[in-house]
Amino acid sequence: MARTEPRTLSGFMELLPNEQILFNQMKETIEDTYKKFGFLPLDTPVIELSEVLLAKAGGETEKQIYRFDKGNHDLSLRFDLTVPLSKYVAKNYGNLSFPFRRYQIGKVYRGERTQKGRFREFYQCDIDIIGDGKLDLINDAELPSVIYMIFKSLGFNDFTIRINNRKILNGLFESLGQKEKSVEVLRIIDKIDKIGKEVVQAELNKIGVLEKAITNIINFIEIEGTSDEKIEKLKQLGIQNEIFIKGIEELEYVIKNMRIFSVPEENFKVDLTIARGLDYYTGTVYETFLNDYRELGSVCSGGRYENLAEYYTDKKLPGVGVSIGLTRLFYKLNELNLIKADKKSVSDVLIIPMVKDLSVPINLATKLREKGIKTEIYLNDKKLKAKFKYADKLEIPYVIIIGEDEIKSNVCKMKNMKTGEEENIMLEELIKRLSKMI
Amino acid sequence: MARTEPRTLSGFMELLPNEQILFNQMKETIEDTYKKFGFLPLDTPVIELSEVLLAKAGGETEKQIYRFDKGNHDLSLRFDLTVPLSKYVAKNYGNLSFPFRRYQIGKVYRGERTQKGRFREFYQCDIDIIGDGKLDLINDAELPSVIYMIFKSLGFNDFTIRINNRKILNGLFESLGQKEKSVEVLRIIDKIDKIGKEVVQAELNKIGVLEKAITNIINFIEIEGTSDEKIEKLKQLGIQNEIFIKGIEELEYVIKNMRIFSVPEENFKVDLTIARGLDYYTGTVYETFLNDYRELGSVCSGGRYENLAEYYTDKKLPGVGVSIGLTRLFYKLNELNLIKADKKSVSDVLIIPMVKDLSVPINLATKLREKGIKTEIYLNDKKLKAKFKYADKLEIPYVIIIGEDEIKSNVCKMKNMKTGEEENIMLEELIKRLSKMI
Repeated sequence: MARTEPRTLSGFMELLPNEQILFNQMKETIEDTYKKFGFLPLDTPVIELSEVLLAKAGGETEKQIYRFDKGNHDLSLRFDLTVPLSKYVAKNYGNLSFPFRRYQIGKVYRGERTQKGRFREFYQCDIDIIGDGKLDLINDAELPSVIYMIFKSLGFNDFTIRINNRKILNGLFESLGQKEKSVEVLRIIDKIDKIGKEVVQAELNKIGVLEKAITNIINFIEIEGTSDEKIEKLKQLGIQNEIFIKGIEELEYVIKNMRIFSVPEENFKVDLTIARGLDYYTGTVYETFLNDYRELGSVCSGGRYENLAEYYTDKKLPGVGVSIGLTRLFYKLNELNLIKADKKSVSDVLIIPMVKDLSVPINLATKLREKGIKTEIYLNDKKLKAKFKYADKLEIPYVIIIGEDEIKSNVCKMKNMKTGEEENIMLEELIKRLSKMI
Repeated sequence: MARTEPRTLSGFMELLPNEQILFNQMKETIEDTYKKFGFLPLDTPVIELSEVLLAKAGGETEKQIYRFDKGNHDLSLRFDLTVPLSKYVAKNYGNLSFPFRRYQIGKVYRGERTQKGRFREFYQCDIDIIGDGKLDLINDAELPSVIYMIFKSLGFNDFTIRINNRKILNGLFESLGQKEKSVEVLRIIDKIDKIGKEVVQAELNKIGVLEKAITNIINFIEIEGTSDEKIEKLKQLGIQNEIFIKGIEELEYVIKNMRIFSVPEENFKVDLTIARGLDYYTGTVYETFLNDYRELGSVCSGGRYENLAEYYTDKKLPGVGVSIGLTRLFYKLNELNLIKADKKSVSDVLIIPMVKDLSVPINLATKLREKGIKTEIYLNDKKLKAKFKYADKLEIPYVIIIGEDEIKSNVCKMKNMKTGEEENIMLEELIKRLSKMI
């Protein structure tokens, strides 16, 4: 028979089972946390009408889209979960309760140039809170507590949620007469960490920002201190711009309430350089960094927007949301060996029968499963050594051996695969013991 | 602004949150059961190279494929989870431990004609056990116990796993000199439930099956009795065909071991008319019916195959597997109002603050979440009535009200939304109580 080489497209993650277990644990941790805050699940199609999906998109995004015809339809694969959310809320407006709090964890598609660590199919894990006409600012303070709980649960301690407010930047630029250039200015100051102050100054100069404005912008970026000190210094700048003042008020209010939401002082920080995209966000913006691995970039970002679905409806739907790019995050953490896993196997127990009649081992498996213990029986006729090797490779923590002698005496042999410890134990006692341990 | 009508493609399921919660509960029940038997997770890409994905496909399947070019690649969306599994096992053969037990729950795509209850994007929930060269027959007896546990956990009692062995049918046809026609004969007898005996006879006659063979086939199909009686009667037919005899032996062995796997007598049945597809399965075949809703068709099907990945590798990889078409199953059950849900909300508790300073309600929420209780705070400034309406629409079981008076006395008001019962309760006591209840 002519054979086809079995291969997977580059830019598409396909894991071996032991890695998939780790990936799924991360995904579950994120999902469980979203649920703990009462976010509702959503699962929109991967394929949408291009007309609907691309109502807004343009430029870079549009080039990356997987787009094709089928039947009479011009179709596209979703490239994020925000556009499908917009469509969904506009479409189902009358059937939703507001504030509409939803999470969605799903694959999205972008035909980027392949590059190590960049994916064309990747999971996004999004939460958004959408108001009907109005959404109180306190919601902006709740999201950091979700981010905090997620990264804590993933086993990280040293991470920082960096927070800013777009109104502060917009107001500053307006006060400096740079409103028209604000998109370019933002793009330049966003890079200060990478390119340094001097290059930022030079680039601002190149696009025609006046010397005095550059000085003001640099002074602004260089405001140092704790979050509270920064806010205080911003106030002392004495900039009499309405948007700027509103931005400071909002930021101060959000910071105050993040504390009430128990986000520890060491896990957040006002960062006046964070802008997040260029025209979508209008207020609070967040980025999250693992401090020992700044090179990963922001691992959880988002912010407040004025209007979710203006391309589909005249209803005003303000919201706030954050997103985790799970596939890339997993890839990087896995590469750095940083994934903390409680468990590296699915099964808690592998039962190895050393008998022809499998009634006793199968009955034991059924009883263990009824107790919620994940139990596998090795059902193929192999040498004992091969069976142990299997348990070892799958990193199953406990192996139970049942042979003729064991059946006669109603006993089995249990081996802790980590410590190598073995003991003989009565079947009834075993079920009780494992129920407690697992 | 010119607006696009927000719409979803027909044949693509997109649920409202309360339905999505039910859908996800079903999905989780299936996944949890798969894990309880130690199946390993797998998550392959939705997009594959057409050359790889369609190495085998042809005819009907090929027409339904979502296929398109991107860059220099001819791509297709997966139409099932079996072909990606074949590719995966062939590709990763050296890194897998056999028997390789995997589950995969994911969306697949078929551009079928739209029709009520038929979907173009739908979830399949698959398990397979793949052997390296050889896979013991007892594995065929384990899968029905997985099916049994799933439908029990989904709240069904009256369902039947119908089981047969393809060798019996193949051997019978061979002994009747109808081996060449077996595909057509199978297709005809598969329909006996719908079209009746007479039409089956007429159709067999039409394709040139001799009178005597037709009589034998009908006698065979009409074998009645319990599973054991059917097996006994098959033996008494005295057909001296090797394949036929092998088929009976296998079926008898699988039935015997299903009993050891604790599948109750009333939930399985030998059904000699079940064939499942035409050339893929080579031994045991399963279908599962909800007896009060036979019109749903089989809700979980599968069987034994000789060789998983012959299009990709010369390794012989026999296996056995079953699949649940979750999207269609959910759709039908939901339509019939048959979904048993423990819980129709994500949140266990909604905290309604009636105060300006939200410290106390937010602190309570944080404490409840730390105890694993899914807690939402109503964070928008609305009338109490609107807040209760929200809890009601989301079917959140408990509402906790915190106002000035409550804060002064360290008490809150808890309302059971089902019974309408209200009580005042100390905050500390509340946390303990809810931890126990939920």
